[in-house]
Amino acid sequence: MKAAYYHGNTTIRIGEAQIRTPRPDEVRIDVACCGICGTDLHIFSGHMDKRVSIPHIMGHEMSGVVADVGSNVENWQAGDRVVVRPLDPCGNCPACRAGHCHICQNLKFLGIDTPGAFQNSWTVPAHTLHKLPDEVALDLGALVEPLAVACHDVRLGQVKPEEYVVIIGGGPIGMLIALVAREAGARVLVSEVNPSRIEFARKLGIDVVNPTEIDLPAYVEKQTDGAGADVVFEVSGSAAGASVMTQLPRTRGRIIVVGIFSETPKVDLFRFFWRELKLCGARVYEPQDFEKAIEIAASGELPLDRLITARYPLADFQKALEPRLLKRGRDEQMKSGSDVMKILINMEGD
Amino acid sequence: MKAAYYHGNTTIRIGEAQIRTPRPDEVRIDVACCGICGTDLHIFSGHMDKRVSIPHIMGHEMSGVVADVGSNVENWQAGDRVVVRPLDPCGNCPACRAGHCHICQNLKFLGIDTPGAFQNSWTVPAHTLHKLPDEVALDLGALVEPLAVACHDVRLGQVKPEEYVVIIGGGPIGMLIALVAREAGARVLVSEVNPSRIEFARKLGIDVVNPTEIDLPAYVEKQTDGAGADVVFEVSGSAAGASVMTQLPRTRGRIIVVGIFSETPKVDLFRFFWRELKLCGARVYEPQDFEKAIEIAASGELPLDRLITARYPLADFQKALEPRLLKRGRDEQMKSGSDVMKILINMEGD
Repeated sequence: MKAAYYHGNTTIRIGEAQIRTPRPDEVRIDVACCGICGTDLHIFSGHMDKRVSIPHIMGHEMSGVVADVGSNVENWQAGDRVVVRPLDPCGNCPACRAGHCHICQNLKFLGIDTPGAFQNSWTVPAHTLHKLPDEVALDLGALVEPLAVACHDVRLGQVKPEEYVVIIGGGPIGMLIALVAREAGARVLVSEVNPSRIEFARKLGIDVVNPTEIDLPAYVEKQTDGAGADVVFEVSGSAAGASVMTQLPRTRGRIIVVGIFSETPKVDLFRFFWRELKLCGARVYEPQDFEKAIEIAASGELPLDRLITARYPLADFQKALEPRLLKRGRDEQMKSGSDVMKILINMEGD
Repeated sequence: MKAAYYHGNTTIRIGEAQIRTPRPDEVRIDVACCGICGTDLHIFSGHMDKRVSIPHIMGHEMSGVVADVGSNVENWQAGDRVVVRPLDPCGNCPACRAGHCHICQNLKFLGIDTPGAFQNSWTVPAHTLHKLPDEVALDLGALVEPLAVACHDVRLGQVKPEEYVVIIGGGPIGMLIALVAREAGARVLVSEVNPSRIEFARKLGIDVVNPTEIDLPAYVEKQTDGAGADVVFEVSGSAAGASVMTQLPRTRGRIIVVGIFSETPKVDLFRFFWRELKLCGARVYEPQDFEKAIEIAASGELPLDRLITARYPLADFQKALEPRLLKRGRDEQMKSGSDVMKILINMEGD
C-alpha cells in the first residue's frame, strides 16, 4: 500500500508502506478520505519538526471502512463505516483521573505523535472509533473531525437559542462554529478580514463584517440593543482578536478561546472585572462532540459539502499542500489560506 | 454634624455638614464606624478627581443605626442596626434587565459617585440596607462590606471542600478570600511578596509563600500531586500576577480576576486553550453575598478583629490616611500599604 511521507523541508513523497496487523485492542481501517488540517500545514511548513518523527505520515480528519480487528475487539467488524477520534490518552495523569482524558497531560494525538491517516490502511486503537451512518457519504465523513471541534466549542460556550454569537476568524473552524451555533438557534456574526472568506460566509447566508472597515464593538452593541454579545468565539489566534474579544460581550458574557496563540497577547483583564466576563479555553473534543457532529452530518441540515474546496488523489498530495505553505508572518499566512476552506485527499486509489 | 471632606491634592478637612432628611424611599443612618478602602486611598491620592465632585465625602465600609426613615419605608425603623450595600443601580440598562444590577452599566457607587459615610449621619436609599444582628459589634460591622467582596469572589469561584485554592496577593481582600475559602473547606495558599503581609498571613495560620523566593507553579504542582490548583484568585492586579495565574490551575481549573488592572497585561491564552482553563471576573457583590458576610461575621468563626490594624477618631482622619498615600509605581504602593490591613474611623464622636 501507499502512504504520504513528510520528509521535512516542505517535502512530501508518496512511498510504499507496510500494512500493520492490529494488536488485540486495535482496528485496521481502509482509509477512504482524509482532509488537510491546519496542523498538517504546520507540520508540512516545518513548524513541528521537533515533535514529529521524520519521515512522518500526517492526517487525522478521515473516514474509512474497518478491514480487520484485533482479538479483543468485540464491537467492530470488517465492513463497518467509521471515523476516528484521534486521541490516545494515558489514563493515569491528573487530567485523565479528573475525567478530562481529551486533554490528557500525556496525550498522543494520532497523526502527529503517531503515524496518521494519509495511507491506504490505518491501524488505530479501537476506542477511537465512531460509527458513520450510511446516510453520511465517506467524503463528508472526513469533515466529522473538524465539525466535532466546532460542536465542542459551541457546547462549552453553552450557546442557547436567540443568543447573539460573534465568531472572530472565518477560517474552516470559525465557519463550522458559525454553522453549528446557527443550527442551535443563535444569531451569528462572523468577523473576518479576508475578502475571499467574507464572500464565502456571505454565500452561506452568514452575517459577516470586516473589523478593519467597521467599528466591530459598536456594530455588536447596536445589534444587541446596547447589551453586547452573549458569546464570543476567538478563533483567529491573533493579537487583534485577543484585543477586541473583551469589547464585545454583555455583562457576564462568555468568551471561548479556540484559536492557538503562538505569541502571548495583551488581554484587557479590567474589562473581565468590570463586566464580570467569563472566558473558557476549548481544545479538541470529547466523545459526545463526535456523536453530535455525526448526528449533524447525518441530518443533512448543514451545507458541509460547500466547505470542500477541492479534492485530490493521493499522488497529487504535494500539489495540494504547496499553495497553502504557511509563510512567516500573519499577513502571508492569511493570504495563503484565503481562498481555501477544506481540501480532501481521496485515499481509496493509489 | 461633622464630615470629612476631600478637597483634592491629598487634603482632608473636617467640616460642618447638613443632616439630610430622607426622601420617601430613603433612610438616614447615624454612622458608627467606617473603614478606609483602597478606593478611598485612590481618591485621597488624586487618582479619581475626574469622577468625584470636590469637595467630596468618601466612605462606604460602614456600620450604623437607623435614625430616621422616609414616608414609603416600611421595613426599617429608628434603632435598627444596619450596614449598607453601597450600590445604586439604574434598573433600566441591559445589565439590570439581565439581572446583573450589581454591575449596572450606569451604576452609582455610594461614597464615590454620591456623598459617602465619613460623616456622622448618612442618608441612603432604603434598598441598600442589610440588618446587622446584635451579636456583631458595630466595629466588626464595618468589615461586612469587604467581607462581602470576598464572599462574592469565593461564590463565583465555586470553591468546594478539599479544593486547593491559591490567592495571588495578600492584601485585605486577598486575606478575606483566604479566610472565606478556608471556612468553605478549601486548602488555601496565599502568594505575597511583602514581608509584613507574609508574616500576618502566617499568624492567621494561612499557608503563604513569596513567589520571588520560590518557584510558585512548581510548589503548587507538588502540593496537588501534579494536578494544579482547582481555583486561583488574582487579587494583585499586577503583570506578574497575570503572568503566573495561568501556570497554576489544573485542567479545567478556574481563575477568578478580582484585582483591578490599571494596565493591560499579557495573558497566556495558549494555556487557556491547552488546559481548557476558565476565567471569571468578579466585581463587588450581590445581596446574597452581603447576607453571607453578615452570617459569617455573626458566627464569630473568622478572626475578623485581627484584620483591624488601627482605629482613629474622625478628627484624625488625615493622619490615618497620610501614611497610606499611594505613591507612583507599584513598589512604592506596596511599601506604603505593607503593614496595614484595615483602618477604622470611629464616626460616633466629633
